[in-house]
Amino acid sequence: MRTIDQLLHAHLREIEPYTPGFQPSGDGWIKLNTNESPYGAPERVKQAIISELERIALYPNPISLNLREALALRHGLDTSQVIIGNGSDDLLNLLVRCFGGNGKVTAESFPSYSLYPVLTAIAAGQLASVRFSRDFELPVDKLVETSADLLFLTNPNAPTGIGFKTEQVRELASRFDGILVVDEAYAEFAGETAIPLLAEFDRIVVTRTFSKAYGLAGLRVGYAFSSPGIIQALDCVRDSYNVNRLSQAGALAAVNSPEAYEPLIRETIATRDRFSRDLRELGWFAYPSSANFVFACPVDGHGKSGALIASGLFQYLIDNKILVRYFPKHPLTDAFLRISIGSPPQMRRILEEIIKWQKG
Amino acid sequence: MRTIDQLLHAHLREIEPYTPGFQPSGDGWIKLNTNESPYGAPERVKQAIISELERIALYPNPISLNLREALALRHGLDTSQVIIGNGSDDLLNLLVRCFGGNGKVTAESFPSYSLYPVLTAIAAGQLASVRFSRDFELPVDKLVETSADLLFLTNPNAPTGIGFKTEQVRELASRFDGILVVDEAYAEFAGETAIPLLAEFDRIVVTRTFSKAYGLAGLRVGYAFSSPGIIQALDCVRDSYNVNRLSQAGALAAVNSPEAYEPLIRETIATRDRFSRDLRELGWFAYPSSANFVFACPVDGHGKSGALIASGLFQYLIDNKILVRYFPKHPLTDAFLRISIGSPPQMRRILEEIIKWQKG
Repeated sequence: MRTIDQLLHAHLREIEPYTPGFQPSGDGWIKLNTNESPYGAPERVKQAIISELERIALYPNPISLNLREALALRHGLDTSQVIIGNGSDDLLNLLVRCFGGNGKVTAESFPSYSLYPVLTAIAAGQLASVRFSRDFELPVDKLVETSADLLFLTNPNAPTGIGFKTEQVRELASRFDGILVVDEAYAEFAGETAIPLLAEFDRIVVTRTFSKAYGLAGLRVGYAFSSPGIIQALDCVRDSYNVNRLSQAGALAAVNSPEAYEPLIRETIATRDRFSRDLRELGWFAYPSSANFVFACPVDGHGKSGALIASGLFQYLIDNKILVRYFPKHPLTDAFLRISIGSPPQMRRILEEIIKWQKG
Repeated sequence: MRTIDQLLHAHLREIEPYTPGFQPSGDGWIKLNTNESPYGAPERVKQAIISELERIALYPNPISLNLREALALRHGLDTSQVIIGNGSDDLLNLLVRCFGGNGKVTAESFPSYSLYPVLTAIAAGQLASVRFSRDFELPVDKLVETSADLLFLTNPNAPTGIGFKTEQVRELASRFDGILVVDEAYAEFAGETAIPLLAEFDRIVVTRTFSKAYGLAGLRVGYAFSSPGIIQALDCVRDSYNVNRLSQAGALAAVNSPEAYEPLIRETIATRDRFSRDLRELGWFAYPSSANFVFACPVDGHGKSGALIASGLFQYLIDNKILVRYFPKHPLTDAFLRISIGSPPQMRRILEEIIKWQKG
């Protein structure tokens, strides 16, 4: 009889799984580590979910039709250009299954969302990782030279928050001979989006999420816009009931409540810009952010920075029940912390702690 | 530049997607086509979901830990033997990705859940489909002879409702040299389960769902029990946040409310047995069912049966706003209808319509 290990696909025996941000249990934490919204969901969204509980014994609409229609309308697209996922991770996974994996080459710029290499490895694909230089300019030439089948571009980038201009994305799209996925998880906090490029290129995919600006990370809903041909391919591989009733109802109410979200997004942007300025006043370097987080290089009371300083502050903040994100594995990231933008009082609190830590 | 079709994996260009049961819009339908519960969810489950809305802006627990623990406790297993899916479809998909696909052979007995061939095709696997004979005895020898890497056994079977004895499953497990998945979506309505076999075989997987007996099809939660080695493999391929907050909270409350479900399950079984007897009194053949549906061969007023009769009644019922399921594609199923067990009044109503139809 064969063992489990013998029966398991060889390429899956050594996978390093994706590490989600730490989810604390217990109260009193200030959670600035996974770019969630500090504002919760609007009452109207909660009520839509509660109303849907009446029908919870019935399977959901398999294609999330109402939500596809609402998103198409909102963004001036056709319903055939929209797909809904169980979080945008679901859609990134489907993209790899359709256009990557099994020896195909998937490219990314590094560092970016650390899920892409995991999805590629799970699908037995080859990864072409193009490293950013320290200035984090978009390496268009190098990305084109990968000749990859599938390319993930996070815009705004994570973990830096840097936003690339639509003009640069257009240049990449016009030269890259594969499927270009622009992962716009943070686009609501940025000025730019690749959505207009959908009219020019049938091989662009724009992915979005309800987890960040919409304050619905707990609901797991993401969406993607593309050409009907790509959407059809993704639909073929998608689980038939991938988005549950409550998620469809809540996300639909969210799409239809722009007036509830716009002030929150404005406040987040203002808080981010104020917080970035505060950090720079402390002598820190922080990349200009177009997202709801700041990627900054901590400087201690002696003017020192580096991996030890960053990891020291990371631990100090945990000891004071503040969670931020630290990526220790690479020289481009190991001297930095990624700090989500919470509410103004939360950001005052972390700033106070940072100042205390600096004073030692 | 390559076209989308050139970029898409060749094996995905001709996939025939899974066809979900029809979900009507509008009111007044009696929905007996997808084996949902007619009783909705208990108040306690709804309240647990409503309470969780407070935390909807936060990512869910990535491994659904509380739910794993509760299910382990309930079934006398270790937490390392449990995994939670976005519906059991999610877990069936992960099983194919780990142990099927890419040239590996996946076996099924036919007819059973029509998703297995779709998942196999999507993963570029080979399918070994072992046909039942009309008596629907479990074809143990033929299943073993497939030498498959992965075998799906639906028990109770769908669409017939026939339950196989645990003794037969044990024989299959002891002789089959691969991963044996016992899909127990309907086990709560049956007397038998393969869960005790987990202590004897590390290559058995038992999958379950909250969609049927628990009345939570709209919530998308399934689970699987197996050995820690298999659970670990599935966890590596699983989306990191595959089950949302509301689903985890609702399913947890459901596991902790056996007293709310036991009378409903008893009533479903009693209604099923009464309805099967009623159909037989009309001269129909119906397989003995261990599930929450009946697979029966309609006989018209002239004593005739067959594909035309079954499809005629299927359409007649739709015209009277009653939905059942018809599988026209195979001689083992094309003269039959699969009728979910609804509430006693719903079953009286469909019986009246059937009698009217028989009278012509």
